[in-house]
Amino acid sequence: MTLIKLDPHDALPLIHQITHGIRALIDQRTIRSGARMPSIRNFAVDHGVSRFTVVQAYDQLVAMGYLNSKLGSGFYVSARPKPNTAEENSKLNDSIDVAWLLRNALEDRTNRAMPGAWWLPGAWMEDTGIQKSLRTLSLKHGEFFTAYGTPAGYQPLRELLQSKLSSSIDVTADTSQIVLTSGVTHALDLITRYFVHPGDAVLVDDPGFFILFGGLKSFGAKIVGVPWNDDGPDIPAMESLIKEHRPRIYFTNTVLHNPTGVSVSQSVAYRMLQLAEKYDMMLVEDDIYGDFHPAKIARLATLDQLDRVIYVSSFSKTLSASLRVGYFACKKSLAANLGDMKLLTGLTTSEVSERIIYQLLSGGHYRKHLERTRLRLQAVRTNTIATLEKLGFTTYLEPEGGMFIWVKSNDITDITLLVAQAAQEGVMLAPGNVFRPHQEPSPWLRFNVAHCENPHIFQVLDKILVNM
Amino acid sequence: MTLIKLDPHDALPLIHQITHGIRALIDQRTIRSGARMPSIRNFAVDHGVSRFTVVQAYDQLVAMGYLNSKLGSGFYVSARPKPNTAEENSKLNDSIDVAWLLRNALEDRTNRAMPGAWWLPGAWMEDTGIQKSLRTLSLKHGEFFTAYGTPAGYQPLRELLQSKLSSSIDVTADTSQIVLTSGVTHALDLITRYFVHPGDAVLVDDPGFFILFGGLKSFGAKIVGVPWNDDGPDIPAMESLIKEHRPRIYFTNTVLHNPTGVSVSQSVAYRMLQLAEKYDMMLVEDDIYGDFHPAKIARLATLDQLDRVIYVSSFSKTLSASLRVGYFACKKSLAANLGDMKLLTGLTTSEVSERIIYQLLSGGHYRKHLERTRLRLQAVRTNTIATLEKLGFTTYLEPEGGMFIWVKSNDITDITLLVAQAAQEGVMLAPGNVFRPHQEPSPWLRFNVAHCENPHIFQVLDKILVNM
Repeated sequence: MTLIKLDPHDALPLIHQITHGIRALIDQRTIRSGARMPSIRNFAVDHGVSRFTVVQAYDQLVAMGYLNSKLGSGFYVSARPKPNTAEENSKLNDSIDVAWLLRNALEDRTNRAMPGAWWLPGAWMEDTGIQKSLRTLSLKHGEFFTAYGTPAGYQPLRELLQSKLSSSIDVTADTSQIVLTSGVTHALDLITRYFVHPGDAVLVDDPGFFILFGGLKSFGAKIVGVPWNDDGPDIPAMESLIKEHRPRIYFTNTVLHNPTGVSVSQSVAYRMLQLAEKYDMMLVEDDIYGDFHPAKIARLATLDQLDRVIYVSSFSKTLSASLRVGYFACKKSLAANLGDMKLLTGLTTSEVSERIIYQLLSGGHYRKHLERTRLRLQAVRTNTIATLEKLGFTTYLEPEGGMFIWVKSNDITDITLLVAQAAQEGVMLAPGNVFRPHQEPSPWLRFNVAHCENPHIFQVLDKILVNM
Repeated sequence: MTLIKLDPHDALPLIHQITHGIRALIDQRTIRSGARMPSIRNFAVDHGVSRFTVVQAYDQLVAMGYLNSKLGSGFYVSARPKPNTAEENSKLNDSIDVAWLLRNALEDRTNRAMPGAWWLPGAWMEDTGIQKSLRTLSLKHGEFFTAYGTPAGYQPLRELLQSKLSSSIDVTADTSQIVLTSGVTHALDLITRYFVHPGDAVLVDDPGFFILFGGLKSFGAKIVGVPWNDDGPDIPAMESLIKEHRPRIYFTNTVLHNPTGVSVSQSVAYRMLQLAEKYDMMLVEDDIYGDFHPAKIARLATLDQLDRVIYVSSFSKTLSASLRVGYFACKKSLAANLGDMKLLTGLTTSEVSERIIYQLLSGGHYRKHLERTRLRLQAVRTNTIATLEKLGFTTYLEPEGGMFIWVKSNDITDITLLVAQAAQEGVMLAPGNVFRPHQEPSPWLRFNVAHCENPHIFQVLDKILVNM
């Protein structure tokens, strides 16, 4: 029996055609809750697709709550909440997704207020340092202008990162353990390619960094969100998810976490490492916001010294998102293998960019720039929280640093309409659902306080909330 | 029955543990040829792994010639050639692989001759143009120094590419069909993520571009090599492989093909498009070397006008490998979807690099640089072919342009030893096996004529060949 019509030549991948088709049948109640789905084998034969495609589609539907699997017996349609009565509402839910947020944030930034952005405003950044670096570089001679870089990246920058790891987070690593990438996303992609196979369970923060989710899904990973408390991941929940799904790896953002602003406490960090040891897992520590933290606080890598931890960071937030320079540090044998993966899948990174970052870091200006930025963030954070509270928002917690706060309105639970209306008024907000592993609904919003100096944002929010 | 011991926590992915383990058992004759392998289901249950992992491992072993599958009956151990008697030899075969070539080529380039390189020597490139661009850029003001770029990349460069496509290869595209990437590899990666699912068959050139093979394999694709003639892919072979494997996509390098130097003839291009139409496939045309061709010749995209063709190119070979600027062009709806894939998996590309490339292209120097380079390549190609023929090498064909020639020795069939000995003498060669989809043996070598002005290369080859 053919359940849905598939077109192998449609631009939409088969797996998405299947998940969309089955969701529609369940949403329309053509298939009732409790119904048994065709076996993977039968579905594959009837629809002329491979079994993997079916398994992945079913897995996604389980993750989205449409199906549940009973061991040895197959897949069943889950009991579903009533469909949204407001057609309007479901349309918005469909359109306000991660791709929408990214396009909307990056396409045309003129004359728009962007509290949903994940970068510092241009006026906060140090153009002059980069201009100076470009000028210095333009006077140099060498093949680095036109040739491929070296496999692990520009050696003097790696030496400088070695010192930085040692002095700022007490991690001892030699340069053979440090590999440059074109940003954190590239580093996470290499780690994913190396460790994750289709169908593998992978732990992530819930809420967490959505670009990571997209990358993991494109490799067929089953992503499992670990609920996030105000001191890091919920440890009992983490352990029971490990027991249930047997992941080999957890990708986590430990300091000034995106989107909540939380930093993992020392005791939680210790217990994360204990679980990693007990269940033989790797932890990938994304520390892209760490340099904004005013204090020297321990990372997972500080405790573990790169045994089970792969440490990842970049300069996209502090110096330049345009230059695309990041890195990872891990144990030596793994660094060699991940370095091969870098070459095999994309050759080398840009030595021109790496030399510019090197000059910016070695000039001594970086520390001053960070100090100024931290103070400025502190001031605007306090103001933004106060202003949002007057408008009826609650803050999840006041972060110790960084640009993000995580807030929800006391008056409304479905923020989709708020986000859509604000967009029409030229205010780009970041709704909580995009930070959840499967874009599950969320009443939260992420605000970037550095973009909140513009009073227009709060006038727009006030106007919308009053009319809701 | 457990056939091999697997460690889910080993750094080596499970699928490789399985293929290595089974290969060892077959090589040691523990499992004899003709033996029936455990079913996928049983192997998965006995070893505690997912069925996908087993299917992928078995598929790889089929591709490597260790297993063969009989429809409806399962997998059997193939009749194998005798194991190499020379232990030495098999060690070399293991160590001279793609990762070896990449590390070896990119790690330390001082005082070494590199006829195996895939770039022009530094002395052939235009440092001064880039120095000038950096200086010009350093005088500008704007957020582009520190901010994320726009989703599709720097608009003026895309406009310039629009004109270039029109004037140089008669392809009409508007800028919404052109998306910038960080090189060809990035473009191919986005296309792979979008179209390819684990287990999907994908056609590639045999021999062809090995970085592509690595990328496809990391997404679980079953790569199928189309044999290559002196006018492009073998069309009857291409059709029978399509019938057998039902691929949805063929990645091909049509002009001054890497590694053979062949350009696809008009009639073969037309027949490739006919097959794509008949079997409803997409063709990905990698045109990274096309600008080195002295004549204006039709591409697949010229005939098809971006309907079934995704056109991919970059400036890594002509202007700078360090800046990492490439692009793809395709039909509008697909460009939007692939553009979303770019954002979702890695955000934007470097606008600093894109502005430098823009300046280099718009200055008018690009054409002159290409003309000079083409003449110089022509001269050194003629000399290199003559010198290699004196040493007993045969050239596959004399290419119409570009840096590559594809040669084999009339005296030796196993070139592994030659490559290893040359490496010890400081001469880096590129052996044919690394260009084959599954690194099957090959008697061919790829020479980059631009690196062959150094007589030391031929002295070393002569010395080794005389003693062999």
